[in-house]
Amino acid sequence: MRREITGFSNPLLKEIRGLREKKFRKRAGLFLAEGLRIMTEAREAGFLPEMLFRVKDRPVHDLEVTLEAEVLANNGDVIETSADIMAKLSGKDNAQAVVGVYRDHGTALVDIDRSTAPIWLVAQSMRDPGNLGTMLRTGDAVGAGGLILIDDCTDPFSVESVRASMGAIFTQKVVQCRWEEFTAWLRAGEGQLVGTSLQTDTDYQAARYSAPCFILTGNEAQGLPDDYEAECDLRVKMPMRGKADSLNAAVATAVMAYEVLNQFRHA
Amino acid sequence: MRREITGFSNPLLKEIRGLREKKFRKRAGLFLAEGLRIMTEAREAGFLPEMLFRVKDRPVHDLEVTLEAEVLANNGDVIETSADIMAKLSGKDNAQAVVGVYRDHGTALVDIDRSTAPIWLVAQSMRDPGNLGTMLRTGDAVGAGGLILIDDCTDPFSVESVRASMGAIFTQKVVQCRWEEFTAWLRAGEGQLVGTSLQTDTDYQAARYSAPCFILTGNEAQGLPDDYEAECDLRVKMPMRGKADSLNAAVATAVMAYEVLNQFRHA
Repeated sequence: MRREITGFSNPLLKEIRGLREKKFRKRAGLFLAEGLRIMTEAREAGFLPEMLFRVKDRPVHDLEVTLEAEVLANNGDVIETSADIMAKLSGKDNAQAVVGVYRDHGTALVDIDRSTAPIWLVAQSMRDPGNLGTMLRTGDAVGAGGLILIDDCTDPFSVESVRASMGAIFTQKVVQCRWEEFTAWLRAGEGQLVGTSLQTDTDYQAARYSAPCFILTGNEAQGLPDDYEAECDLRVKMPMRGKADSLNAAVATAVMAYEVLNQFRHA
Repeated sequence: MRREITGFSNPLLKEIRGLREKKFRKRAGLFLAEGLRIMTEAREAGFLPEMLFRVKDRPVHDLEVTLEAEVLANNGDVIETSADIMAKLSGKDNAQAVVGVYRDHGTALVDIDRSTAPIWLVAQSMRDPGNLGTMLRTGDAVGAGGLILIDDCTDPFSVESVRASMGAIFTQKVVQCRWEEFTAWLRAGEGQLVGTSLQTDTDYQAARYSAPCFILTGNEAQGLPDDYEAECDLRVKMPMRGKADSLNAAVATAVMAYEVLNQFRHA
């Protein structure tokens, strides 16, 4: 239904603004994605928002017209607001002109079919939402099937993570589980678990990867726990020519993922 | 000199807190680096802070003892504060226990000796401080000589950029200049300019890179302007297997930089 919100005190606004906090997202089972670009990626991946907030009285892109028509046809709401109200909703001055409220769509490990993709990313206790979203975006680029989040990761449905994913939150499967669940599932089928490590002499280009390849990246500050590293089928290291001995976690994942993709595409 | 600040109203605190804003950094020629890890990287690279703020009455790491001794020997100040004052200085509750105030150390293009490193990173209108800091960190890892910032980039000496660099702000040369200055300097000597592009069929692994190789990355949203792309000696593309057609800018730079490093080390 198409309707309008004109008052700052409308209770729906408070509810939607609350979706910036994890506890309210969990309670509602909803999350926010901001901007036409990401919302178009979502639509193309088959996801429509339950509510679409839009600033009225401004030039409108064709893609937004299409999106709004589909939201309405799908029994969703298109809600017109002023730019001021949108700024309040977004908590920032330069708010996007459209914001979507989506049903969250995590996948259970048991519902993953590992044969559908040659690469899967696995993150352990990833704390930075920008890193997590960037890993989703990289996963999409290398043709990964999804991102499996182990232990105490930051919420993939946070506004920051969704933004950094540039829409890949809708195209990648997202699983959250404990390490024991993951390893039990992994070992019940085919799959090579690869971790980057400082405790190995195996160059990441000398190793031979096989599909489905699970690339495991540890927490930004601590890296992987020793027993997680021990579980890996391959421990590899990237060359480090500088003073420091590490890369940003999302960067390290991408460098590994492109090496695996390169081996597969040249095989 | 070792001294103590006990009052929240001390004018030095306001001055130091101001260094979180670019205009005050420019005016003072100073910037902040937070935490013992980054400050130790700085020390090892030959940079000592003019002032070191530390929270008193807590366990102290050996590296901090060494650092403080060197700051004092170098005629710098070691300033003791309470945790509350440090939180005010940092603008956050979980502040680091040590914060350094450093003289900023940008390099002029004319002072760069391109023969000192096989790889140089070049960023055009990079807007996100996390991306810029991550590029510095990646530059350190691949043995790059430095990062050349073209046009309207975010300030490399911001707190966010310094943090994301994990100390590489001290080990990489940092140059800021206009495109015309850069190209004039580049073409006055040896050097291959490489840009990633969607308008080419050349796979990034099929191209042959030569040192010194300058890897050019464009703005996060717009990518490279057409005439900048036209100036490149090589335009290459990375495989994209997903729905979207791009990577995070810092990730794309890293994937390119590792390909160049891999070709050089296997040559």
